[in-house]
Amino acid sequence: MQAMRGLFITVEGGEGVGKSTNITCIRDYLQARGVALVVTREPGGTPLGEDIRTVLLQARRETVAPMAELLLLFAARAQHLRDVIVPALEAGKWVICDRFTDASYAYQSGGRGLDSGAVRTLENLVQGELRPDYTLLLDAPAVTGLERARGRGELDRFEQEELVFFERVRNTYLQLATESSGRYHLIDASQPLASVQQQLHTICEQLHACWAPRQQQLR
Amino acid sequence: MQAMRGLFITVEGGEGVGKSTNITCIRDYLQARGVALVVTREPGGTPLGEDIRTVLLQARRETVAPMAELLLLFAARAQHLRDVIVPALEAGKWVICDRFTDASYAYQSGGRGLDSGAVRTLENLVQGELRPDYTLLLDAPAVTGLERARGRGELDRFEQEELVFFERVRNTYLQLATESSGRYHLIDASQPLASVQQQLHTICEQLHACWAPRQQQLR
Ligand SMILES: Nc1ncnc2c1ncn2[C@@H]1O[C@H](COP(=O)(O)OP(=O)(O)OP(=O)(O)O)[C@@H](O)[C@H]1O
Ligand SMILES: Nc1ncnc2c1ncn2[C@@H]1O[C@H](COP(=O)(O)OP(=O)(O)OP(=O)(O)O)[C@@H](O)[C@H]1O
Ligand SMILES: [Mg+2]
Ligand SMILES: [Mg+2]
Repeated sequence: MQAMRGLFITVEGGEGVGKSTNITCIRDYLQARGVALVVTREPGGTPLGEDIRTVLLQARRETVAPMAELLLLFAARAQHLRDVIVPALEAGKWVICDRFTDASYAYQSGGRGLDSGAVRTLENLVQGELRPDYTLLLDAPAVTGLERARGRGELDRFEQEELVFFERVRNTYLQLATESSGRYHLIDASQPLASVQQQLHTICEQLHACWAPRQQQLR
Repeated sequence: MQAMRGLFITVEGGEGVGKSTNITCIRDYLQARGVALVVTREPGGTPLGEDIRTVLLQARRETVAPMAELLLLFAARAQHLRDVIVPALEAGKWVICDRFTDASYAYQSGGRGLDSGAVRTLENLVQGELRPDYTLLLDAPAVTGLERARGRGELDRFEQEELVFFERVRNTYLQLATESSGRYHLIDASQPLASVQQQLHTICEQLHACWAPRQQQLR
């Protein structure tokens, strides 16, 4: 019998909403229950991808063409899929990814104004049929996340954008959550961390209860 | 009356066939006849593009996914088109570009084995309707160009490929020249430089005689 592939979970949301913080919490919960998993991030996740991340995040004199930005993100994604995500899923591991293609819809289409059809074209070209199984959207007013993120020091090329940019990003995420409500789970990330993590525990419990037995059965 | 856009000339061919050397010769010929022109190259041509070039050419431990390579090239191209090529053409200048999208067909499809449909999809996405007006293909046996190029010192990530890779690249270029014979001009670059440059002079004469008057007429 063929082993079932692992669960592909993505964590999305604007700057500083708490993606990295909460992924640690999800990882700890699932690992304690014996789930084999890989935690990774975009842009990045491979040596080439991390080089592309540097090129993308660097503050620059010239503006970056939105289409160039989108293609750089998908270049990193192609390498990430081939070398990290797909092999892990095929080995039955769960993958938790800090941002994925929904971020391209939110930032490059919603934020920068590119036609969402361009994102769709690249999604099909690079991912084939692969889509996340489950997406956690950490939602908070743009200003809340920005204040948290800007506490960390020097601003990268994205963090230097105006507030309205991040409001468009947030609205696009909320729209994606409505359109793909089966896959999305929305969490109010403006709540105190303790309350966010309580909600996360419930979600992890459900994911584990629902998916882990199916996988074992199929081994 | 609207000014006519400048002529978009690309120079193509495998490693070390003499693209850079001969572009200098073309530039000198046309500038001496008063043609306003911009000489540029791919991957590169902009600060972002040159950063991408570094990421692309660096020798690496990991192999680069062909799709990631293709997307990086088109990311550099998107920036190059927006900031250099299109503005120059719109200002009526001629653009001479050392490699362009045909190199993506030759290297990433012919050389790496990606479906040419992927290149076509990106060409349409990034360039819209824009295509070179005139393409000079410097053709020589792969081994001839490699010997010339390898005389220059340390090998970049492409130059480290096997000979068969460059033979596939050459064959794809020759096929493109057959398919788009209206736009392509083939030059035997295995000839001594003096003979290549004599052929180039004839071509430059024809281009100048044919295009410069049309542009003046339309001003
Ligand atoms: N619910 C919360 N309440 C208050 N502070 C929080 C909350 N969640 C995270 N933080 C804090 O906000 C800051 C940003 O969190 P974190 O780095 O996890 O966000 P992120 O979404 O990963 O940011 P980025 O988009 O920049 O990667 C951290 O200092 C973190 O401790
Ligand atoms: N027809 C020729 N005969 C002999 N040597 C040549 C000829 N054309 C160019 N060369 C020499 O070959 C070397 C490579 O030429 P050049 O750098 O112009 O090639 P290129 O196509 O731009 O290479 P690359 O693909 O690496 O950019 C140079 O040393 C150049 O002087
Ligand atoms: Mg983070
Ligand atoms: Mg050259």
